[in-house]
Amino acid sequence: MKIIVLGADGYLGFPLSLHLLSKGHEVVGVDNLSRRRRVREVGSHSATPISDPFIRCAALREEFPGFQWRFMDLRDPVEVDYIFEKHRPDAVVHLGELPSAPYSMMDIEHCNETQVNNIVSTNNILFAMRKHVSDCHLLKLGTMGEYGTPNIDIPEGSFEVEYRGRKDKLLFPRQPGSWYHLSKVHDTQNIIFACKIWGLRSTDIMQGVVHGIVTEDMERSCDCVGKDVDSRLITRFDFDEVWGTALNRFCAQAIIGHEITPYGKGGQTRGYIALRDSIQCMTIALENPPEEGEYRTFNQFDECYSVNELAEHVVKVAGEQGIEAKIWNIENPRVEAEEHYYNPDSEELRKLGFKPTHMLDEELEITIGYLRQFKDRIEEKRDRIMPTVKWSA
Amino acid sequence: MKIIVLGADGYLGFPLSLHLLSKGHEVVGVDNLSRRRRVREVGSHSATPISDPFIRCAALREEFPGFQWRFMDLRDPVEVDYIFEKHRPDAVVHLGELPSAPYSMMDIEHCNETQVNNIVSTNNILFAMRKHVSDCHLLKLGTMGEYGTPNIDIPEGSFEVEYRGRKDKLLFPRQPGSWYHLSKVHDTQNIIFACKIWGLRSTDIMQGVVHGIVTEDMERSCDCVGKDVDSRLITRFDFDEVWGTALNRFCAQAIIGHEITPYGKGGQTRGYIALRDSIQCMTIALENPPEEGEYRTFNQFDECYSVNELAEHVVKVAGEQGIEAKIWNIENPRVEAEEHYYNPDSEELRKLGFKPTHMLDEELEITIGYLRQFKDRIEEKRDRIMPTVKWSA
Repeated sequence: MKIIVLGADGYLGFPLSLHLLSKGHEVVGVDNLSRRRRVREVGSHSATPISDPFIRCAALREEFPGFQWRFMDLRDPVEVDYIFEKHRPDAVVHLGELPSAPYSMMDIEHCNETQVNNIVSTNNILFAMRKHVSDCHLLKLGTMGEYGTPNIDIPEGSFEVEYRGRKDKLLFPRQPGSWYHLSKVHDTQNIIFACKIWGLRSTDIMQGVVHGIVTEDMERSCDCVGKDVDSRLITRFDFDEVWGTALNRFCAQAIIGHEITPYGKGGQTRGYIALRDSIQCMTIALENPPEEGEYRTFNQFDECYSVNELAEHVVKVAGEQGIEAKIWNIENPRVEAEEHYYNPDSEELRKLGFKPTHMLDEELEITIGYLRQFKDRIEEKRDRIMPTVKWSA
Repeated sequence: MKIIVLGADGYLGFPLSLHLLSKGHEVVGVDNLSRRRRVREVGSHSATPISDPFIRCAALREEFPGFQWRFMDLRDPVEVDYIFEKHRPDAVVHLGELPSAPYSMMDIEHCNETQVNNIVSTNNILFAMRKHVSDCHLLKLGTMGEYGTPNIDIPEGSFEVEYRGRKDKLLFPRQPGSWYHLSKVHDTQNIIFACKIWGLRSTDIMQGVVHGIVTEDMERSCDCVGKDVDSRLITRFDFDEVWGTALNRFCAQAIIGHEITPYGKGGQTRGYIALRDSIQCMTIALENPPEEGEYRTFNQFDECYSVNELAEHVVKVAGEQGIEAKIWNIENPRVEAEEHYYNPDSEELRKLGFKPTHMLDEELEITIGYLRQFKDRIEEKRDRIMPTVKWSA
């Protein structure tokens, strides 16, 4: 297949591109490098010293000479139209959105920037698909955070409703918890509409929190004697308050001897999936596209954990590597339920063959083990881990 | 009360401002006149020759010297912040959005323009309220079109869900039918979130299609001997394919002897309300604000009609005024259900005292009677009535 990966310089986009190339697909990577700029904006950096985009691209081309790279801003409808016209892809993976809740909560400018960036980029893609490749499969990254934490089970996308004696199949109501999460809900509604009126096909991934740094492709591609991973092919690992997930922050904190800091009571429960398994899922979705006009939703995660459980797992795995870590529950900067029911479905990807390979502890062992060599880089940004962006008035 | 009316030069905003002033409220009107510009953009004009904004404003000030007017673009967060800081209103009525489905469906530029305009303006208002007047009541114009046409009853905003043996109260799923309608759904989700995390209060109006031109305030304010309506105070009446509602188009078509053209089978059923009753409802909502942190939804309409029924009512009322009109069902440019179940609730406003005063025929009689004097202005734009903007691929 010919696949465009939007956001190909990102945490998921780069290893996904590598994986698709290694499976023999033709890949066009697109990015405007804005993630790099935005992490600098908040005074931080990736714990892993990811390569310059030129070096990354050259490293991929050594093994996959057909790999193409385009520097482009997805907010520009003319540019987006052009790549669809030029490349006429079989599928497009849209990872090119602003993915941070705290970034969107900083102020009105960051709220608007996040929502406009995400909505406009997705709309531009939908219109370009309609015009040039109406058969193309849009694989779009949403988030499990679209659902929030309702007091009932969470189906995959939509559900059968019985109300006052009548029935219909409707979108499951969303309760997003930040301006960023809201933007993903807006995308969801926009994509549903485009599939309905134009017959486009799309898979909307409600993804859990992804963790891990290393994938087999980075090892397999290695040409450096005595090392397991080609350092040019590693992906980013953000750990600051704005761009790092809770689990990433906990790993970073353990490594530099900082207390591990769950927000609030720590009962906030979410779905989690290892990076390599996320890539496995996206590849399965690409190789099993939906029908014409079909909009389908996959809840893409492996296991559920509360934030306190995450902290305990990090303490345990770090301890096994001789790192002593302590937990300190701090005031929650977010407005969210800290104790709640949580029971989301995740059957659809398993039906298509998804088999999780790395559970939390196993992946954490690799992540912490790999990350320890970058202790100095984490230490350098130690003051960017504790939360300053607040949700409340 | 001190009330800011955003979109005060518009179809609803101008007569609402007039009504609130005549009820003794202090009003600050805000507009950037973009609706006038956008109607010109599609080669049309209002059938009623609305006054220059300066004359309108002067006419209001003759009777209400305290009326204030500000020319401002709501997309600018700095400007929006400034008016909330300066005026510190008790309530703000947000009618300042792009309100046209066909306009949003023209191309990617109009899609993005509509969604960005509407989302950004509402976000700017929410942030300014939070900063300067967290007690302020946001009365926000949504649309019954947010719900689409589900096969079950439509409650007011949210509903009690029972699913796999557990219960929760959740947002009723939305099925909007254009990029414009989608923007209103995005607003809804954004406002719910702001009320939740910041304790803001908001009434979200899911309004049916509004019809009519004349309100009592325009008559009462009259100082022109021998006329019932002060011509400086009339509101706009759009009838072209982009800015006119089906009912407006039918009235205009009848007056110039053009066939009345329902789209498709004509079974599309929606809620309708007379302009004066819409203003009554908004005034009731303003005078009965929600609690701190409360987000409430009112389904604001009086009666439901199918498009074919509308056409038949126009034929009947026009006939009574000696105008012979014929119906011609044309191909539907939209993608929408042409035969469907439709049973929306509308109890909340009635509980607060809303009493509809003008049913469809009664208001149509006034509208067609008043509009006939502008037959030449409609005739001049005859070629802008039939649909050219299409929904499908």
